[in-house]
Amino acid sequence: MKGKRSLKIIPLGGLGEIGKNILALRYQHDLIVIDGGLMFPEDEMLGIDLVIPDISYLIENREHIRGIVLTHGHEDHIGALPYILREINAPVYGTRLTLGLVDAKLRESNFTGKVKTCCVSAGESIQLGAFQVQFIRVSHSIADAVALGIKTPVGTVVHTGDFKFDQTPVNNQPTDYHKFAELGKEGVLVLLSDSTNAERPGFTFSERVVGETFDETFRNAKERIIIASFASNIHRIQQAITTAARYKRKVAVVGRSMVNVVNIARELGYLDIPPETLIDLEDIQHLPKNRVVILTTGSQGEPMSALTRMAMCDHRKVEIITGDTVIISANPIPGNEKMVHRTIDHLFKQGAEVIYESVSGVHVSGHASQEELKLMLNLVRPKFFIPVHGEYRQLIKHAQLARDVGIPPENIFVAENGQVLEFTPERGVVTGRVTAGRVLVDGLGVGDVGNIVLRDRKQLSRDGLFIVVITIDRESGEVVAGPDIVSRGFVYVRESEELIEEAKDKVRSILRDCELRQSTDWPAIKSYVRETVGKFLYERTRRRPMILPIIVDV
Amino acid sequence: MKGKRSLKIIPLGGLGEIGKNILALRYQHDLIVIDGGLMFPEDEMLGIDLVIPDISYLIENREHIRGIVLTHGHEDHIGALPYILREINAPVYGTRLTLGLVDAKLRESNFTGKVKTCCVSAGESIQLGAFQVQFIRVSHSIADAVALGIKTPVGTVVHTGDFKFDQTPVNNQPTDYHKFAELGKEGVLVLLSDSTNAERPGFTFSERVVGETFDETFRNAKERIIIASFASNIHRIQQAITTAARYKRKVAVVGRSMVNVVNIARELGYLDIPPETLIDLEDIQHLPKNRVVILTTGSQGEPMSALTRMAMCDHRKVEIITGDTVIISANPIPGNEKMVHRTIDHLFKQGAEVIYESVSGVHVSGHASQEELKLMLNLVRPKFFIPVHGEYRQLIKHAQLARDVGIPPENIFVAENGQVLEFTPERGVVTGRVTAGRVLVDGLGVGDVGNIVLRDRKQLSRDGLFIVVITIDRESGEVVAGPDIVSRGFVYVRESEELIEEAKDKVRSILRDCELRQSTDWPAIKSYVRETVGKFLYERTRRRPMILPIIVDV
Repeated sequence: MKGKRSLKIIPLGGLGEIGKNILALRYQHDLIVIDGGLMFPEDEMLGIDLVIPDISYLIENREHIRGIVLTHGHEDHIGALPYILREINAPVYGTRLTLGLVDAKLRESNFTGKVKTCCVSAGESIQLGAFQVQFIRVSHSIADAVALGIKTPVGTVVHTGDFKFDQTPVNNQPTDYHKFAELGKEGVLVLLSDSTNAERPGFTFSERVVGETFDETFRNAKERIIIASFASNIHRIQQAITTAARYKRKVAVVGRSMVNVVNIARELGYLDIPPETLIDLEDIQHLPKNRVVILTTGSQGEPMSALTRMAMCDHRKVEIITGDTVIISANPIPGNEKMVHRTIDHLFKQGAEVIYESVSGVHVSGHASQEELKLMLNLVRPKFFIPVHGEYRQLIKHAQLARDVGIPPENIFVAENGQVLEFTPERGVVTGRVTAGRVLVDGLGVGDVGNIVLRDRKQLSRDGLFIVVITIDRESGEVVAGPDIVSRGFVYVRESEELIEEAKDKVRSILRDCELRQSTDWPAIKSYVRETVGKFLYERTRRRPMILPIIVDV
Repeated sequence: MKGKRSLKIIPLGGLGEIGKNILALRYQHDLIVIDGGLMFPEDEMLGIDLVIPDISYLIENREHIRGIVLTHGHEDHIGALPYILREINAPVYGTRLTLGLVDAKLRESNFTGKVKTCCVSAGESIQLGAFQVQFIRVSHSIADAVALGIKTPVGTVVHTGDFKFDQTPVNNQPTDYHKFAELGKEGVLVLLSDSTNAERPGFTFSERVVGETFDETFRNAKERIIIASFASNIHRIQQAITTAARYKRKVAVVGRSMVNVVNIARELGYLDIPPETLIDLEDIQHLPKNRVVILTTGSQGEPMSALTRMAMCDHRKVEIITGDTVIISANPIPGNEKMVHRTIDHLFKQGAEVIYESVSGVHVSGHASQEELKLMLNLVRPKFFIPVHGEYRQLIKHAQLARDVGIPPENIFVAENGQVLEFTPERGVVTGRVTAGRVLVDGLGVGDVGNIVLRDRKQLSRDGLFIVVITIDRESGEVVAGPDIVSRGFVYVRESEELIEEAKDKVRSILRDCELRQSTDWPAIKSYVRETVGKFLYERTRRRPMILPIIVDV
């Protein structure tokens, strides 16, 4: 099987996790990369800013990479490009809006290298080595999203990217059913499909449902309307702007990423803004309250975002006032629920009416639900199926759906990042494994924070630290100063003098012991101090601060 | 208004938050306390074990307290009792199961004081000073829950506790509609009602729905069944056991709190267990797989719980094997979603079939939804209404429901913890404020961790720490050793030698400066070191570790 004539599919991210989607296709000496996304850190990755995929495999094979092909402009598909493009010099292919967002991202991260970007449109094909890549229009929660139909010497591979089947999309350009049907009819070897909503029965609602809710809300709102949404959801923004214009309201855009995306989308023609609809934030004070819409970021309750600042009375320019209607047009991403709820609570306290998730129609997902996933499987009729983009249980559910529509279980691969799946026209087998994993980005450091640093942060976060400083004479080995104690995040030292004194006594008695035994094995003494003081503090407080004995010799 | 003949209602916890429910009623010199619950810490309360209410007001008025009345045995209603009863010597009234759980809790926390507990039954009344307290049966996700009908010289107060209107409860004892109707007919001055599900439209499903799902799952399961649930949900446990007996399976109980609660409930007669249904965990190996049910804790993905350990292959006695069916019979509490999802993923990886939240019928809430809340309002027909038990937006939604059923807005109080609400038969007014708030419990320390300690833990958790040790001669003021650097949670020191050396250079040049200027203002030097090194490290790493300069004089 490990023949030269086989196609290798190598997921490097996005399997068993939500985010950092990246996948390599290889045929002989030709390699293409699909997407290059980032992931937001898990709770236990204390202090980490973001997580990017480990691309060692791509670096080792950089001379074979014919191109990086992007499906759409979300962070979990393009966010790692500034890091990837430092290591890999390959042309980047994407649709116009996607590349607009990539450009902005590279500028923002002070990317200095040269990147060749090539703009493509849905319906077009390009040849990258052995691969003929066709871009297929799909609906998603960002404009200009595409799936990929990839003809290889072994057979056709379809990669859906992120998608849904919106029957009434805002831009009237539905997912290209005909193309998927045509490929299915011709015969598809492997389908890779988006598993994000594989747990959800039925169909995902059309984006237009949100427009209807906007309309109803605008009809009833007597004063200002504030809408928070994902900046990248151009269709949502379009609906907010269209509804505002319909009700003769002006729209002020607030929040860095919202301003950026609106500018890019507008320049590239992805937003249709009626003349004189947008106004500067400063000018809303000259308008009656029922003529104003504020479009902003912060739908996830992010602490530094515009909406959160408004809710906390901490925004420089916008204050929430009684009579405001706030629409939070997004669902909390798992893990963000509490932050979102807190923002809603504060908005209510400021006197706003808040319309949020529990009110139906204020948000719809951008991902296909179970019936749509089955429709994709039935349209494409692949011989082999690999669910992608999802946590493990979502991949499992998607695999079950594939079995339900008749794909033989042995032709379904619930794979892991780093696995090498090899396909011939007849067979598919897992043949090996390449390096794959998570690289943590903390400030300027890429990959320099590992398990030890994280473990220390965790211990420090729970019970703080307790430093014991002892000064000894280098020659005589006698203690000349200390023990001194410095503590942070453990107890209020001022209210715990007795505890600190007793801890010092413990250390003194250790030191006396050592003097008696004429021991100068400082590492051993340190570890003895750590153990004794740790035990003492645990007994007295049931806390386990990090204990750092520092011995200074003079 | 501040007359002697008014009734004071003083919520001390549970308003604007989920948890630590506690409320005081006062008439002249008589005071009763309703519930005494705890809250689990928020994410940003690093290292905190639990949160209890500030009861300064009760301590100041301890001689007036005629009793502590409990509505049911959940932690958010009884969990702070071990702390409260250390300060307050008052009899505790509750139903049999509630007191059984209180006893266990007091034993567990090595409570040494004397507590007078008085067992009551639904339907009974007791007189506590000026208050006649009647216990009214309600359905909830724990057995033996009651609401309170409290006759006071000013009028009747109804406190619902936590409740739902289950039309087909597992124990065939529905909420006592007639009592609420009777009180409503006689006239109720104030209703305090549970707001937990005020955002949910419609009715909450009956607990029996879960039994039906259990039945279906048991019918289809070919091998072992593992059910995780809240230990306190006796009716859920009853249904698991009943279904097991119906399908001729034996039940092994695993997990400390599950074993405890099953024992207590069984002793007190709240569980009806067919003979020979329970078996020891050790004995399941002697049974065929399709004769086994394991009933366990861990439905919230808690890291140390039995189910999580099984999922992570870390349980001493139970290993998940292919063919197991795991039912997670609970919804993730907000904030726990990621832990629950991770547990589910691992269970799938071990080869289990997992039935969880997205599958309808595997869990129902114990709290009334909007239609039930309106029914309660219509049955009780109070003059004044105070929504309790909920975050701010839930109280607001509940207030809206009350307006919808015709309670005048000026008679609805969306109150805060610590507010004093005074009522006469004609009027209700907020007249003052008493101390109320959160007391953090960390290990043995109650209230000794405050904002400074938490702020330090937060900084340490994000970027770790960087200690600079300098030793100087006390007399000459000369530097005799150092600077030495100790760092944790910041960077791998071994891979960052250059950075550390440069930091040392920065410190040396500060010290040289000081020597030249003959400065011995050590606090000023420390702060200069902190600032300079902090700035240097931020420029080089974009991280802000806590910088601790330590000066040792010898």
